[in-house]
Amino acid sequence: MSSSTEGRFVRNAWYVAAWSSEVGDQPLARKIIGEPLVAFRNSRGAVIILSDTCPHRFAPLHRGKVIGDQIECGYHGLRFADDGQCVFNPRPGGVLTAANRVASYPVVERDTFVWVWMGAPDRADPSTIPAFPWLTDGDTYVKTAAATMVQRLPVELIVDNLMDLSHGAYIHRDSLNAYPPDAHVSGTVTADVTQDGCEIHNLVQRDGTDFYLHTFFRDSRTVADNGTVDLWTDTRFNAPTTIYFEVGIKPPGEPRAAGEFFGSVHALTPCDADTTEYRWLVFRNYAKGDPGLTAEMEKLVGHAFVTEDEPMIGAVRDRMAGRDFWSMRPITLAGDQGAIAARRCVERLVEADRIGVPASVRPR
Amino acid sequence: MSSSTEGRFVRNAWYVAAWSSEVGDQPLARKIIGEPLVAFRNSRGAVIILSDTCPHRFAPLHRGKVIGDQIECGYHGLRFADDGQCVFNPRPGGVLTAANRVASYPVVERDTFVWVWMGAPDRADPSTIPAFPWLTDGDTYVKTAAATMVQRLPVELIVDNLMDLSHGAYIHRDSLNAYPPDAHVSGTVTADVTQDGCEIHNLVQRDGTDFYLHTFFRDSRTVADNGTVDLWTDTRFNAPTTIYFEVGIKPPGEPRAAGEFFGSVHALTPCDADTTEYRWLVFRNYAKGDPGLTAEMEKLVGHAFVTEDEPMIGAVRDRMAGRDFWSMRPITLAGDQGAIAARRCVERLVEADRIGVPASVRPR
Amino acid sequence: MSSSTEGRFVRNAWYVAAWSSEVGDQPLARKIIGEPLVAFRNSRGAVIILSDTCPHRFAPLHRGKVIGDQIECGYHGLRFADDGQCVFNPRPGGVLTAANRVASYPVVERDTFVWVWMGAPDRADPSTIPAFPWLTDGDTYVKTAAATMVQRLPVELIVDNLMDLSHGAYIHRDSLNAYPPDAHVSGTVTADVTQDGCEIHNLVQRDGTDFYLHTFFRDSRTVADNGTVDLWTDTRFNAPTTIYFEVGIKPPGEPRAAGEFFGSVHALTPCDADTTEYRWLVFRNYAKGDPGLTAEMEKLVGHAFVTEDEPMIGAVRDRMAGRDFWSMRPITLAGDQGAIAARRCVERLVEADRIGVPASVRPR
Repeated sequence: MSSSTEGRFVRNAWYVAAWSSEVGDQPLARKIIGEPLVAFRNSRGAVIILSDTCPHRFAPLHRGKVIGDQIECGYHGLRFADDGQCVFNPRPGGVLTAANRVASYPVVERDTFVWVWMGAPDRADPSTIPAFPWLTDGDTYVKTAAATMVQRLPVELIVDNLMDLSHGAYIHRDSLNAYPPDAHVSGTVTADVTQDGCEIHNLVQRDGTDFYLHTFFRDSRTVADNGTVDLWTDTRFNAPTTIYFEVGIKPPGEPRAAGEFFGSVHALTPCDADTTEYRWLVFRNYAKGDPGLTAEMEKLVGHAFVTEDEPMIGAVRDRMAGRDFWSMRPITLAGDQGAIAARRCVERLVEADRIGVPASVRPR
Repeated sequence: MSSSTEGRFVRNAWYVAAWSSEVGDQPLARKIIGEPLVAFRNSRGAVIILSDTCPHRFAPLHRGKVIGDQIECGYHGLRFADDGQCVFNPRPGGVLTAANRVASYPVVERDTFVWVWMGAPDRADPSTIPAFPWLTDGDTYVKTAAATMVQRLPVELIVDNLMDLSHGAYIHRDSLNAYPPDAHVSGTVTADVTQDGCEIHNLVQRDGTDFYLHTFFRDSRTVADNGTVDLWTDTRFNAPTTIYFEVGIKPPGEPRAAGEFFGSVHALTPCDADTTEYRWLVFRNYAKGDPGLTAEMEKLVGHAFVTEDEPMIGAVRDRMAGRDFWSMRPITLAGDQGAIAARRCVERLVEADRIGVPASVRPR
Repeated sequence: MSSSTEGRFVRNAWYVAAWSSEVGDQPLARKIIGEPLVAFRNSRGAVIILSDTCPHRFAPLHRGKVIGDQIECGYHGLRFADDGQCVFNPRPGGVLTAANRVASYPVVERDTFVWVWMGAPDRADPSTIPAFPWLTDGDTYVKTAAATMVQRLPVELIVDNLMDLSHGAYIHRDSLNAYPPDAHVSGTVTADVTQDGCEIHNLVQRDGTDFYLHTFFRDSRTVADNGTVDLWTDTRFNAPTTIYFEVGIKPPGEPRAAGEFFGSVHALTPCDADTTEYRWLVFRNYAKGDPGLTAEMEKLVGHAFVTEDEPMIGAVRDRMAGRDFWSMRPITLAGDQGAIAARRCVERLVEADRIGVPASVRPR
């Protein structure tokens, strides 16, 4: 971890390294919290993740090739087994020792993602990986394609953005939220932030709302005859960098199960202090036979991320110019609780890493 | 002010923020001595300049829009009045306090410029703004268009360039000064540098000169029958970064009023340590009915700035590589007095800022 | 020398500043171990190398022009004689002193190269310049064109690459070494690293080899009837940054003089910590009447440098990210002796510079 990433990221945590579909039998390069990694599937189909730096002369192993269960360095031909041990030196008289190895990382494939544990291997606990059961339940849900954006943005500013959806009325005024900002204050609004371990829920409910959230519900069957609905926006944050939120509508007074919603998955992987890999998709439990709506969701949401969110977050990053968030004395207003809770939670985990105390990231 | 600008610029000073014509009723972004600013005209037509950083999540305010006398942040919709006070938070339950505000800056419009005071507001004294009366006297003078260059150059090296016009014989040998450098030493030459507070004059007179300064005087009526003139170059520097100079010719022995001259205004605004906004124009008191000469002045001078001065100053900047000027032990020669006096004057003002002592920038 | 080059390079050493053919009667800019230099030939044809920074306002002298034996600064017209003394100030009243000068550097032209001594002038000893007698012996050898690459690579990583030619079987598998890596271990192999002062030899001999090194020997007359040869690869390193190696084949049991070989010259000039000028050519003592082979050598070797070595070395540089080589705890294996010896030798010379003790760079 370079000095610019030291103390910035949670180490003892699971991060999404890839969509499962991305990893094949040849090397795939990744950088996560500043550490270069190489991923490949061995001959049994298991995903292997090793340090991407050859310990001999520091060539990136991903520039070499996978031969059976081994990866060969492309510079001088050293070969490493899938547990990281160096097992072959092609030069005459080459002797290898147990110390000639690269680090290997715990890996779990789940819910279409490859998760990697970046901390002490003996503390890797797969039960703390946040679940995304919707992604493998094709009967109940229809989803957009698995998408990946590489953004030149620090991950914490993307989390800030997602944990305060009130930005939609301004940034996405002309795309996802084609309604005047004043509409936001109609209806009866309740907002709740709850925290369980390092899982944070940010729930906003607007009962008796007389407008549609946006065009994605335009053909909804849940719209009451009088044109009003209950609207909910439920955001789930799992430290350090994974967010899920759903937006739903239901007939006034009915339970959520009577409603329709779409959910979006935001798996943020900090490559380093400046760059984030952002994997996302959107799924829904309604209008499942409407491929046009699926295509529209994919296009509109992707467009909003790239042309609306990313420039604004980048402008914030430039304005911060590397300064610490708190040192800039941000003013805190109603609506900021979720984002602040997420930020505090990550800071607590970084501190736990630093002093060597395990911190629970699982919901109790 | 970031660390790279800290202690580098005079804070308690007026800077040109814009030509008056640049500021309209929507946000205009500026950066001056490292501070991001946003300028707009309020409903009464007054130019307002505020800090461009929303104190909530640090979005640049210029990405939002002006609504009446308020500017709305484009990220989460906070609105700020034209005195910087935050007056609206769109989120439910939003409470605002007097501390929720952005800095506002003293502004003066004068002589076609918008001037902004970057220091302590209670020390802003409009009488210390350098005057450019020629710019609004259309009866006596004809002028080129108001021009703005953004140069990736530190402001002090541009000042160095302008305060020693002897560079013209070398850098501008083939454009503005199409004569051999040896011509410089003909005639009787006197050079005087005088300083009054932080206004410095650099006057060079060449009496009985038998050549033309350059093509701009080619049709001059002041040329004596015997082909000789008195030539003057009079440079005025007003700390920290404004320069005016005129170049004139007159019949030998006559007063300046009997002569013809053109003046050029160089309003340098340091954005930060690396970049300068450079506003300029040229005016003259002769050949006023010759639009071809006006066009030629505009084209030739602009061309000289961009293709001759800027590359050389950039080469000096690269060669200095961030080192302090004095630490490089420059040799000082005849002709350097004006530039050295300007540099010392600015250093004195920066030091006065640092220790908190007011320093006069007005001519006595 | 800027802070990033301080203590990184050997100062008391000869470096190749140019091919002799590069230097003419107008200024040529160079940067060597962080120092900007300007080279030109004076009226007697001698190569002059001066500091490229005018001591007045730090303009690069190479932006000016050479007038006779003097170089004129392009900014304010100061002129410097070919010993570095400032001899002319065009401004009225200009007085010059002996202190108004730029540094001049000892220069030697030899073997088609211009060598410059970057250390204390009184320690410059031309006898320590490594000899390349092949380059001027057109009767015995035919050579490719003098080539220069500017690589964004730190010089020590290029030395590492060249001092361990085992990389050829991997990096150049499909170009220069079109044979399987296992071929490397056939035959009887002996490897020797010897050091004499700061000249290091890395000799690898493979006796009774039954394959061709590569296509460059495809028409060789030395191939024994039974198809086996003795193969040698002899690398000579002269600290700090010059490498020569030859690759030869001969009938089994015969002396080298009975064989055929090609030699390659690698004159590495570190511009600064990030960039290296790399001058090279290849010559041979066989098939001298075959211009097609000469063209093929030039093309294939240049292609290998640019498309195979440079990306890999750049990947290593990126992976090291400015960290010290030893701090990364490289594992050392058979075959690394030559590169390690070269690195240690340079480190010793840098240390000798630092503490002011002369260190011999000549072979004893």
